Amino acid sequence: MPPPGNAATALAELTALRNGLVVTDPDVVASHERDSAPFCPNGSAAALVRPSTVEEVSAVLRAAHRHGVPVVPQGARTGLAGGANAIDGCLLLSLERMNRIRSIDTTNAVAVVEPGVVNAVLSRAVAEKGLFYPPDPSSWESSTIGGNVATNAGGLCCVKYGVTAEYVRGLQIVLADGRVVRTGRSTAKGVAGYDLTRLFVGSEGTLGVVTEVTLALRPAAGGALTAVSFFPDAASACATVCDYMAGGGQPSLLELMDRLSMDVVRRYKDLGFPDGAGAMVLMQSDRGALAAQDLAEFEKVATGHGGDVVLAENAAESAMLLEARRSVGVATELLGSFISEDACVPRSALVDLVVGVERISRDNDVLITCTGHAGDGNMHPTVVFDPADPEQVRRAGVAFDQVMKLALDLGGTITGEHGVGLLKAEWLETELGADGLELQRDIKRTLDPTGILNPGKVLRS
Amino acid sequence: MPPPGNAATALAELTALRNGLVVTDPDVVASHERDSAPFCPNGSAAALVRPSTVEEVSAVLRAAHRHGVPVVPQGARTGLAGGANAIDGCLLLSLERMNRIRSIDTTNAVAVVEPGVVNAVLSRAVAEKGLFYPPDPSSWESSTIGGNVATNAGGLCCVKYGVTAEYVRGLQIVLADGRVVRTGRSTAKGVAGYDLTRLFVGSEGTLGVVTEVTLALRPAAGGALTAVSFFPDAASACATVCDYMAGGGQPSLLELMDRLSMDVVRRYKDLGFPDGAGAMVLMQSDRGALAAQDLAEFEKVATGHGGDVVLAENAAESAMLLEARRSVGVATELLGSFISEDACVPRSALVDLVVGVERISRDNDVLITCTGHAGDGNMHPTVVFDPADPEQVRRAGVAFDQVMKLALDLGGTITGEHGVGLLKAEWLETELGADGLELQRDIKRTLDPTGILNPGKVLRS
Repeated sequence: MPPPGNAATALAELTALRNGLVVTDPDVVASHERDSAPFCPNGSAAALVRPSTVEEVSAVLRAAHRHGVPVVPQGARTGLAGGANAIDGCLLLSLERMNRIRSIDTTNAVAVVEPGVVNAVLSRAVAEKGLFYPPDPSSWESSTIGGNVATNAGGLCCVKYGVTAEYVRGLQIVLADGRVVRTGRSTAKGVAGYDLTRLFVGSEGTLGVVTEVTLALRPAAGGALTAVSFFPDAASACATVCDYMAGGGQPSLLELMDRLSMDVVRRYKDLGFPDGAGAMVLMQSDRGALAAQDLAEFEKVATGHGGDVVLAENAAESAMLLEARRSVGVATELLGSFISEDACVPRSALVDLVVGVERISRDNDVLITCTGHAGDGNMHPTVVFDPADPEQVRRAGVAFDQVMKLALDLGGTITGEHGVGLLKAEWLETELGADGLELQRDIKRTLDPTGILNPGKVLRS
Repeated sequence: MPPPGNAATALAELTALRNGLVVTDPDVVASHERDSAPFCPNGSAAALVRPSTVEEVSAVLRAAHRHGVPVVPQGARTGLAGGANAIDGCLLLSLERMNRIRSIDTTNAVAVVEPGVVNAVLSRAVAEKGLFYPPDPSSWESSTIGGNVATNAGGLCCVKYGVTAEYVRGLQIVLADGRVVRTGRSTAKGVAGYDLTRLFVGSEGTLGVVTEVTLALRPAAGGALTAVSFFPDAASACATVCDYMAGGGQPSLLELMDRLSMDVVRRYKDLGFPDGAGAMVLMQSDRGALAAQDLAEFEKVATGHGGDVVLAENAAESAMLLEARRSVGVATELLGSFISEDACVPRSALVDLVVGVERISRDNDVLITCTGHAGDGNMHPTVVFDPADPEQVRRAGVAFDQVMKLALDLGGTITGEHGVGLLKAEWLETELGADGLELQRDIKRTLDPTGILNPGKVLRS
């Protein structure tokens, strides 16, 4: 579809600004029209815009605002909810070229970065200075801080260290009309005015475009040790998670893999999983001198629930145990297409979620592995299907919706860390209620009165 | 001033609702017209309204909205920025009767409370179940959770555990027009829609009225040990704070008292402060088995900066050392009226703040003690004055403004934890800039289109 006239005018203005700012090569544009979510449709973009400075971002939004052209901000497009998918006639606004780490301040434990900085690049840079940036989404080797902020990304170590939002102290934001504002602060605390920083974090590019992030850092964690435990069934694994946490456990990682996840890994690689194990739980403590004691406490709880526990005694053994968790993604990819759910429930309902997902898998005759951040009650039931088989695709969609409904029925949320995007926009009202949704729409209208910022994402158009 | 006609109509409607909901006794009303901030004017309220249920809060706001009557929400009125002060003709909406702890869920480490629950009541109730609610403002024995949420209150242990906002997972809110909505979630994580919970936290009753709070709890902390250290001057004390934190210290308390604070305490009680000490730093670690080691590390850093360190070896000794910090408030009260600043600066600028406050004290010939949460860079310079001496009052006001300007010049904020209220509303634009302030006004207009909610607080009318 050719860009509509108003997009053409905006593009002409932007093309004149700087050589290379606007890319219209159809192959390049097309390669940027989707993120990593299946099931979500994408439109055909008018162009890809690659600003290097906040002034260029502001110019793009001024032009888009003036001419009524939709803008879809993008990071590394590793998102799992279609939040970065193109809309017909839009400008794809890639922030990947704004990828400088502006400063790492060791005295105040603060970093200032541009949105295109890759999570792993920042994490390694601060580690070299003895600091720690905890948020570690699975995509951390490729996803950007801007994308992490846009989705309020989580990860494995959230159970101890929290999600991206908890590290964002301040933002520079380009508003829908091109105005540049700062929110928040660089200090440890601050309550001057409404907390707009948190409003933009997790807003998936629908309220403004992040052009700079001030991040809190932590001291480096202590040495970490890992334990793995195998259980006869999901119920005993979930009971272990709940009891260990309720007993005051502070693991830096507490992951659960169900039987089907283990089967999928078994087909990929022999990691020595015992026959007949119905679920496994991985636990890590990074409390240095206290880690061994934490593992012993975990072992006690797990053994009490019929678990067989293997304790790592050093970093190499810990890495081996963690390989099982990392293998789930790779092993699943080999089976076909898949779509990852992101249900988060109260920890006490974890067993109902895992058992419920097994039932949904059987009922719909579709493979659903269930692995995730058990300590937070945040699981990623993953529906595997053959995209060439329309009937399988249909059943996968039905199962996916049933998992969302299950999460809500258990007092949980449709998305713990992936975001709403396109994928779950129609489920949002079910979770928030009519008045809650209306409040969200009020906020959207206030910050983006002409509706050019990533329309249809989070809130349906 | 008699209530204007529209307030009278609203009051008649509310009086008919329930006996005791509306209080018009002039003495009772007058006793509720101020919070704990000096310098802030208060108006004359039309009535005090004391709802017991969310339905009654909703009825109050519906009536106020219909008749255009301003509403000033109140907790225990321990606030230090005039946020709860009456406006002429307003309804004072006290939430103190909504004081039930609805539930404490040990498996999920979550409590659900009404806004009138006193912080200390909740803290003790969860401690009895082996859990921990960290936010500990100085007012914790009397201030309410609703007030803590409205101001995003901090406290001594923020340096390790963060502020109130970090514990608020979800809210029930009555909007300006009386609609009741829920924000957030009860799960550990969740990104379904814009984060409106954080928008209401710290909004000082200007965007909605909190009627229920879902709070995250932590496992009980480990045993705590305390150290106190005396330094020749503020510079060596501040350098100790910075170096200890930059070295990976994770104190559960890291407080600084300057020379004038120590002098004020000396006049009140002999706590054995050494002669000639120019500043003191209190440090606590609650890492149980690691606490003694943490204290030893702190001692090493402090000694390196010329500090004399006293280490507590048990809980009783720790409590004795902490008495100095607790005595500052009482000792200051004995000297006359005082107004507490709430500057928060990057930790590296702590010394410039403390030394700058000393200079402002000298320049204006007014006593300003400087005590506070040094680990967070959040200090409470406290200006002492005789309210009967207009010239002293004037000089105190000038000094107060100079401290705010100093905080901003040092890259800090005018308020780390007390809030803007009336006291600092005119300084907010200086901190946020014109576009930043306009964005705040946009949010206010969206959520409170007729401007009945605590008008003039946070944002000037």
